[in-house]
Amino acid sequence: MAEEKWKTAITKIERNKIAMKGYQVEELMGRVPYSHVVFLLLKGELPSEEYGVLMDAMLVSSVDHGVTPPSALAARTVASGGAALTAAMAAGISAINRYHGGAIEGCMRVLLEAVKRKRESGSDAATVAAQTVDEHRAAKRRIPGYGHRVHTEDPRSVRLFALADELGIAGEYVEMAHAIRAAMKEKLGRELPMNVDGAIATMLCEMDFPPEVSNGIFAISRSAGLVAQVYEEQTRMRPMRRIDPTAHEYDGPPDRKVG
Amino acid sequence: MAEEKWKTAITKIERNKIAMKGYQVEELMGRVPYSHVVFLLLKGELPSEEYGVLMDAMLVSSVDHGVTPPSALAARTVASGGAALTAAMAAGISAINRYHGGAIEGCMRVLLEAVKRKRESGSDAATVAAQTVDEHRAAKRRIPGYGHRVHTEDPRSVRLFALADELGIAGEYVEMAHAIRAAMKEKLGRELPMNVDGAIATMLCEMDFPPEVSNGIFAISRSAGLVAQVYEEQTRMRPMRRIDPTAHEYDGPPDRKVG
Amino acid sequence: MAEEKWKTAITKIERNKIAMKGYQVEELMGRVPYSHVVFLLLKGELPSEEYGVLMDAMLVSSVDHGVTPPSALAARTVASGGAALTAAMAAGISAINRYHGGAIEGCMRVLLEAVKRKRESGSDAATVAAQTVDEHRAAKRRIPGYGHRVHTEDPRSVRLFALADELGIAGEYVEMAHAIRAAMKEKLGRELPMNVDGAIATMLCEMDFPPEVSNGIFAISRSAGLVAQVYEEQTRMRPMRRIDPTAHEYDGPPDRKVG
Amino acid sequence: MAEEKWKTAITKIERNKIAMKGYQVEELMGRVPYSHVVFLLLKGELPSEEYGVLMDAMLVSSVDHGVTPPSALAARTVASGGAALTAAMAAGISAINRYHGGAIEGCMRVLLEAVKRKRESGSDAATVAAQTVDEHRAAKRRIPGYGHRVHTEDPRSVRLFALADELGIAGEYVEMAHAIRAAMKEKLGRELPMNVDGAIATMLCEMDFPPEVSNGIFAISRSAGLVAQVYEEQTRMRPMRRIDPTAHEYDGPPDRKVG
Repeated sequence: MAEEKWKTAITKIERNKIAMKGYQVEELMGRVPYSHVVFLLLKGELPSEEYGVLMDAMLVSSVDHGVTPPSALAARTVASGGAALTAAMAAGISAINRYHGGAIEGCMRVLLEAVKRKRESGSDAATVAAQTVDEHRAAKRRIPGYGHRVHTEDPRSVRLFALADELGIAGEYVEMAHAIRAAMKEKLGRELPMNVDGAIATMLCEMDFPPEVSNGIFAISRSAGLVAQVYEEQTRMRPMRRIDPTAHEYDGPPDRKVG
Repeated sequence: MAEEKWKTAITKIERNKIAMKGYQVEELMGRVPYSHVVFLLLKGELPSEEYGVLMDAMLVSSVDHGVTPPSALAARTVASGGAALTAAMAAGISAINRYHGGAIEGCMRVLLEAVKRKRESGSDAATVAAQTVDEHRAAKRRIPGYGHRVHTEDPRSVRLFALADELGIAGEYVEMAHAIRAAMKEKLGRELPMNVDGAIATMLCEMDFPPEVSNGIFAISRSAGLVAQVYEEQTRMRPMRRIDPTAHEYDGPPDRKVG
Repeated sequence: MAEEKWKTAITKIERNKIAMKGYQVEELMGRVPYSHVVFLLLKGELPSEEYGVLMDAMLVSSVDHGVTPPSALAARTVASGGAALTAAMAAGISAINRYHGGAIEGCMRVLLEAVKRKRESGSDAATVAAQTVDEHRAAKRRIPGYGHRVHTEDPRSVRLFALADELGIAGEYVEMAHAIRAAMKEKLGRELPMNVDGAIATMLCEMDFPPEVSNGIFAISRSAGLVAQVYEEQTRMRPMRRIDPTAHEYDGPPDRKVG
Repeated sequence: MAEEKWKTAITKIERNKIAMKGYQVEELMGRVPYSHVVFLLLKGELPSEEYGVLMDAMLVSSVDHGVTPPSALAARTVASGGAALTAAMAAGISAINRYHGGAIEGCMRVLLEAVKRKRESGSDAATVAAQTVDEHRAAKRRIPGYGHRVHTEDPRSVRLFALADELGIAGEYVEMAHAIRAAMKEKLGRELPMNVDGAIATMLCEMDFPPEVSNGIFAISRSAGLVAQVYEEQTRMRPMRRIDPTAHEYDGPPDRKVG
């Protein structure tokens, strides 16, 4: 009896052939940017030019946030015990979960629900946003994706929304994200700008990614920052040091402009 | 007594400001591709246009290799126990070590040593390559980066070397990689084409990356493949299944051409 | 302003002094078995003699289950890429989650709820067990902890229940576990013996452990099996092999009796 | 062609039968302590009564060391991002490597080499110890296992050596460990007591464990401490806090005596 083979729809491997979602790897290499291939692997299709730009900007936005996020501290701490670079990186990636990056998924669920309700009810975004804010207040739950413990106006969020506008791909989810911000300002009397998690959530909704994969996209992006963090720990610090999460300072290249 | 602050040269965080190696994140977003920002974080400078293309192609080359590498199998197995996407991904990344991707580091060390010797001795590449092959034979050690259990002529290697030529950035390491291949053919009577690990090693040497970081670069690239693998396992397979490493087949999109 | 210190109630460290939950480590060593110290760390008190025996038997019951559980396969697969013993072990531990060992937590929640209901309603165990089975059938949910894909009468469960009886510590949770088994037999017409997850769940309820810690207790126990699995993989197998989850056989010491 | 089955010598699984190294699990449960089963899995045989006591004391000695070791901090940090208990635990275990617990392996290699040399040369322990200290000084390398950043006379080491004496199992490795301490005192003019890593290394040598497995034994022991640390973090602390590695204090049960 021939055992049935299990199926995978990601990559086909044959002798001298590697094809991802139908595209031969050597055709992608040098023609399609890495960030677009990430989109391809997760969505099954290459992105449009506009989505490609947005996907790329999104990956850049989260690539590193200094030494204080739990992912960076966990990775450095594991490295400090003498672990291999990839083992330390893995610990950092494991730290990306409900509270660290998890607001992306939470915010996506709020936006998906709100836009669905708007479509089904025929109401406008402001009305649904007001309901959404009321319901969260009644349930004493925060709407994920708004507010940040460090940044009052997160440059990454501002840039992502500006890009979506420039590229002409700001749709119902961008509209709803703004409507919720406005509703919170009116009802709570507080300006709670969207943080980078919220901005990424909005863009992932626009590009029709499933919420379940959002932690993974954040982790792909941050993987590069984690390699940099671990490599610095391994080459610049002594082993087994006590890594203070606050008493640190930047001594890298000074401020400069691209190009 | 003020405790001394520890130093980091990667990212500067201030209120409403995030600067990586001196560049503000919002300036990078939408202008500098993710792959170039990876280069920036690990090397301290943005790549030249040519190195940028090569870096990007390199990241694309390793993004996925189907379900059989230990990284994919480990990630799927952990997911199969019910772990979070990032925990499963982390297991996959931990599998990248001496034997899985490790040939990149091994090959880099051989190339670095050979080119150093060539420079110091004033010999030509062929002479040093012949010595290198002889020494490895005498020590009964394989030269990492040549030969592959599946691919006889790896399309990824071919493409990387072709790109380096096209871009005019093939230098002493590319020369030495070819010279070692020729020397092995002559001395062992066998054509052992460079595999993708060897090709990446050669390109990393050309771009002056330290060998210690090579596993990390491979892991950054593969992180996207791992998210795709884990997400497929979580959404398409039943939990706790026995994941057969050979009895599987591809059922994704058929062969197609880029644009 | 002096920053407030954060608190921990586990271990006090001073020069030449290590005290866990108030007991000096050197007093515990050689007098209190490791399994009892595990109980101490998680419950805050040393176990009674009877609970100590049960705790020990429970840790022994789960220490290894051959090469097929996801934890063993994940750990071996990561080891096969060349990772360190502890990194491979870590992958195995990460595989312990909702579906692998997770039935312990699920079963604990069912038993805790059922016994609570019995106490509050004044009904007998059989009545509440019947309700519990009915409710799960109506919701088309299985009751975790019953049935096993390999063992029809799991020797570990049998032994744990026998020990609880012998030790005179079988209480309301043991009673309810039996009552649910009987109710399922009556209503489903099938004998679904309690598996080891269910038996451990019952014993953890009797000893008043919180369900949230159950995966951790299983992981402590299995950590030894994982070291054995990884060490065997590292010393006996070649790297990067394809680890078939079914085509394996035992060639260790033959059957023998204790003492 | 029937594919050959791969072999494992750890546990035999058949329907309703689980036998570890030949012993049925239900026979071990309740009769053989967990710590002895750990010995069985790693050495292939149950320990003698004396080795059993020593093994148990060794596992107790390393079960926890408060919140400051990299393993505890990494585990807490990952938990703080919202990861599952087992994922956080896994990060902690990965932190156990060359510098964290690694001195056990390093010290074992020194002791194994020294005792081998003593046997082969017919010299006494003092002579070989003096050579060993001289060689390490000449190479500017520390002998692992001596000295501690916190404890000047580690109560765990003192107790392990005392137990070995009491049990009558102190042999050539204990002798050599003392001889090296004496030689260091004479040659360096400093009293460097053996730390717990060194004491464990000595006992593992006496019981004939391979050095490669020492990190694993430490990780088995510490796994319980990590569960306690993670559970405390998850239940007592707020998510995403900055975990200061120095500003903490113990507020658990006060000092007390065992039974």
